[in-house]
Amino acid sequence: MATNNLEEIEFTAEHYNYLKRDERYNRLTEEHVEYFKSILPKENVLCSFDNSEETKKELLKFNIDWMKKYRGQSQLVLLPTSTEEVSKCLKYCNDNKLAVVPQSGNSGLVGGSVPVFDEIIISTKAMNKILDFDDMSGVLICNAGCVLSDLEAYAEERGFMVPLDMGSKKYCCIGGNVSSNAGGLRYLRYGSLHSNVLGLEVVLPNGQVIDNLSRLRKDSTGYDIKQLFIGAEGTLGIVTNVAISTPRKPKAINAVLLSSNSWENVQVIYKKAKEELQEIISAFEFFDEFAYSMVKKHMKLEAPLKQQNEFYILIETHGSNKEHDDAKLNAFLETIKECKAAQEGYVSKSNEQTRSFWVMRESVPVACSLNGAVFKYDLSIPMASLYSVAVDMRKRLMDANVYRPGDDTSEVINVAAYGHIGDGNIHLNISCKSYSKEITDLIEPYIYQWTQEHHGVISGEHGLGLMKGTYLGYSKSGVMINIMQNIKKMLDPNNIMNPYKYLPKSQ
Amino acid sequence: MATNNLEEIEFTAEHYNYLKRDERYNRLTEEHVEYFKSILPKENVLCSFDNSEETKKELLKFNIDWMKKYRGQSQLVLLPTSTEEVSKCLKYCNDNKLAVVPQSGNSGLVGGSVPVFDEIIISTKAMNKILDFDDMSGVLICNAGCVLSDLEAYAEERGFMVPLDMGSKKYCCIGGNVSSNAGGLRYLRYGSLHSNVLGLEVVLPNGQVIDNLSRLRKDSTGYDIKQLFIGAEGTLGIVTNVAISTPRKPKAINAVLLSSNSWENVQVIYKKAKEELQEIISAFEFFDEFAYSMVKKHMKLEAPLKQQNEFYILIETHGSNKEHDDAKLNAFLETIKECKAAQEGYVSKSNEQTRSFWVMRESVPVACSLNGAVFKYDLSIPMASLYSVAVDMRKRLMDANVYRPGDDTSEVINVAAYGHIGDGNIHLNISCKSYSKEITDLIEPYIYQWTQEHHGVISGEHGLGLMKGTYLGYSKSGVMINIMQNIKKMLDPNNIMNPYKYLPKSQ
Repeated sequence: MATNNLEEIEFTAEHYNYLKRDERYNRLTEEHVEYFKSILPKENVLCSFDNSEETKKELLKFNIDWMKKYRGQSQLVLLPTSTEEVSKCLKYCNDNKLAVVPQSGNSGLVGGSVPVFDEIIISTKAMNKILDFDDMSGVLICNAGCVLSDLEAYAEERGFMVPLDMGSKKYCCIGGNVSSNAGGLRYLRYGSLHSNVLGLEVVLPNGQVIDNLSRLRKDSTGYDIKQLFIGAEGTLGIVTNVAISTPRKPKAINAVLLSSNSWENVQVIYKKAKEELQEIISAFEFFDEFAYSMVKKHMKLEAPLKQQNEFYILIETHGSNKEHDDAKLNAFLETIKECKAAQEGYVSKSNEQTRSFWVMRESVPVACSLNGAVFKYDLSIPMASLYSVAVDMRKRLMDANVYRPGDDTSEVINVAAYGHIGDGNIHLNISCKSYSKEITDLIEPYIYQWTQEHHGVISGEHGLGLMKGTYLGYSKSGVMINIMQNIKKMLDPNNIMNPYKYLPKSQ
Repeated sequence: MATNNLEEIEFTAEHYNYLKRDERYNRLTEEHVEYFKSILPKENVLCSFDNSEETKKELLKFNIDWMKKYRGQSQLVLLPTSTEEVSKCLKYCNDNKLAVVPQSGNSGLVGGSVPVFDEIIISTKAMNKILDFDDMSGVLICNAGCVLSDLEAYAEERGFMVPLDMGSKKYCCIGGNVSSNAGGLRYLRYGSLHSNVLGLEVVLPNGQVIDNLSRLRKDSTGYDIKQLFIGAEGTLGIVTNVAISTPRKPKAINAVLLSSNSWENVQVIYKKAKEELQEIISAFEFFDEFAYSMVKKHMKLEAPLKQQNEFYILIETHGSNKEHDDAKLNAFLETIKECKAAQEGYVSKSNEQTRSFWVMRESVPVACSLNGAVFKYDLSIPMASLYSVAVDMRKRLMDANVYRPGDDTSEVINVAAYGHIGDGNIHLNISCKSYSKEITDLIEPYIYQWTQEHHGVISGEHGLGLMKGTYLGYSKSGVMINIMQNIKKMLDPNNIMNPYKYLPKSQ
């Protein structure tokens, strides 16, 4: 069983023993720490040199990821309070060849935001102010360390909404969202951060500041440099401020929960929904019976549906007129009933019930993580073959006799699939008793090969991090990886930013 | 007066005599031409060495831009028919230090798609096939030389629409749209090419092919390299294939034409429209009385409005239910009437009338160009000060006594403003009898300084090209320009791609 005692979690460097500390990086000295104490508020420098038990406990939290799968050995956490402080910290690290891991909410799922060895953690948590909001354009400008749900509350008070929504919103920060190119639950309607992020301020490893905090929706003046940092996972610099476009908050939110007996029928429902609910559809989510069984078991939640089925679908609409949306939704349900694509359908009767549908869908990842250990994949695959990855994975694990449904001694407990159908993004969660090399080797690189063969990519929204850093070749060609390496070398010539992970080897 | 005789148009190199041919580029020889003839279909190599009058006339068309403002002196046009042929052409040019101008529809407005001196023109016009369309995801894959209106017709036949629409759609090609980061009329609803372009295939100067023709809506596997080519204006490589996401074609299209007496009221109308028509609004366009006077004069078009006013606004809606949209639009008009922000309002009674509203709006740029010469600017500026640029420019030109409204001998005939309010993108068209240095110097760099001071950027959708290449510093900081130059040097070390324009000097 995975442990809840943080001290017992295995060090990443021990578990992944192919990883070696790069001795070109200097080791932390008292002198370094003194410098950081001279430029930051004293309480914003957490260092194990202090020999305080409290500091050690604090450091542990920054060193361990949300899944408790990765554990670094950093002795120093810096919490700068301004762009200028970030700039000074990074310049010093660059000049002194000290490796750095940028961190914000530390809710990432690929081990990207915690150190592998003794990298210095630079956290943006102390930079969490909202700087500006324009209620004409809807442009919100804020520090990278703002928590997503705080931004959501702020925008909603003003009649707007943040275009990004995800299960981790109470922990994750906008800087990390940008750096991991987060997708989320309403991407189908509100789109990608590549369009919603209008401007960024980024500190480069040499301390230079990219001051591109634009509030403009349109800009055709040169290469769109900021796009490089959306999804760079802290390997090129530290995002310090973000300008994001927020849409109006919908006046009416409706939802319907459906069940369907085949992937073909799920696709029929999707196509009809896009046709009939085109301008109001805001989410088209699914979870399978395997996922639902985890929610029932661990969360004691039940859907208002009478029969068990293969797939459960949550469709949400955002509109400006509830009557109009109800009419559209009822007409859509008639269509679905006629063509028999869904076996049951339940329209939410209140905002509370809509919320309860979402709680059910959002509980899936949490429920899947309560079995001990969970291997999480966020594949992006064309819709026709999207679900086959779950079917094929179950078969593979059963063939290897590590997955024996109904047998309490089975190492693999469940293989659940859920996700964002409209975006072609499936989450495959393989729940196990513990993280073991045997299971890992059965899953990887098989799952990445499978994805490549089916014209998908190995990450739709979590990013690469440590978990998938070495598998980039399954999704990008040599020519593209070479360009990425050259960009990395150009902006981070000393390779101090988030080493050992994504793009570990520069040329 | 500007001439219609193409032979009489002044060479760019003579008009902008600060430009000097870079003698590091080799001059075209018979041997070079022989090579191109050996790898391309014979009829796809147009060279003035042939001494044919017909070829010379053809070359002239490729050498002169849509505005007839820029004229290059290229002796060779190559029309490759495949990615492989583009790759061979570019590799040869790179190995032999021959400068290149990529061209597709040649409808650009900043002189970016025609040569300055003797650069070889590589046109994608012979690559105009639609390769694939998926009616589940709406992803369309096509060659870069496909004409935008052809893609539109293709998508519409299948119940979808191209998310990009603009006045030049019958000429412009998707490769050029991508390369200039085109915006257009429905950007407000359907967004930027940075989100709608899912994948690109690009040939680099060294002949390498970036095979990133992804059909996936989500991808978090590494730096999003393709974003660099969206808006690179052919300075980094040649886009050969495009994968673009197409939304469903709306079942109902409505439109309303309003007139308003102040910029403050225009903003009130915009805010109300975003609130009340949130999910159905597809365009919020304006043109001022100066623009309308040109349409009346040159196009003999009249709006169905009784009184002259300061501003005319065209609001369009795209929805799935005409009755619902009518109800929303009527309620919106009531609100506007109550708050007296508009003085007149006219709802379109038929699709033909909706079309006629659009013809009026789309006729503005054409009408403005029929006075002889026109200086065109596509500024992106925060909404509150968006229109002030027109007011201040008129004053400046009147103060200099070159703009004397009502006087037939006035050098400046009109200063019209129109554009995409929701996107903060204004088009300022200064119509003159001819292109003169005196007028140019009065406008530039004043207009760029003004834009910088008002937190805008000097191009919202046309790009930089030759016209604005040297003014990039008004919109991007030294740090950002330095990064752009390093990217340019990385991907085009011999600087053969579209020289003399955007980013003319690499470090």
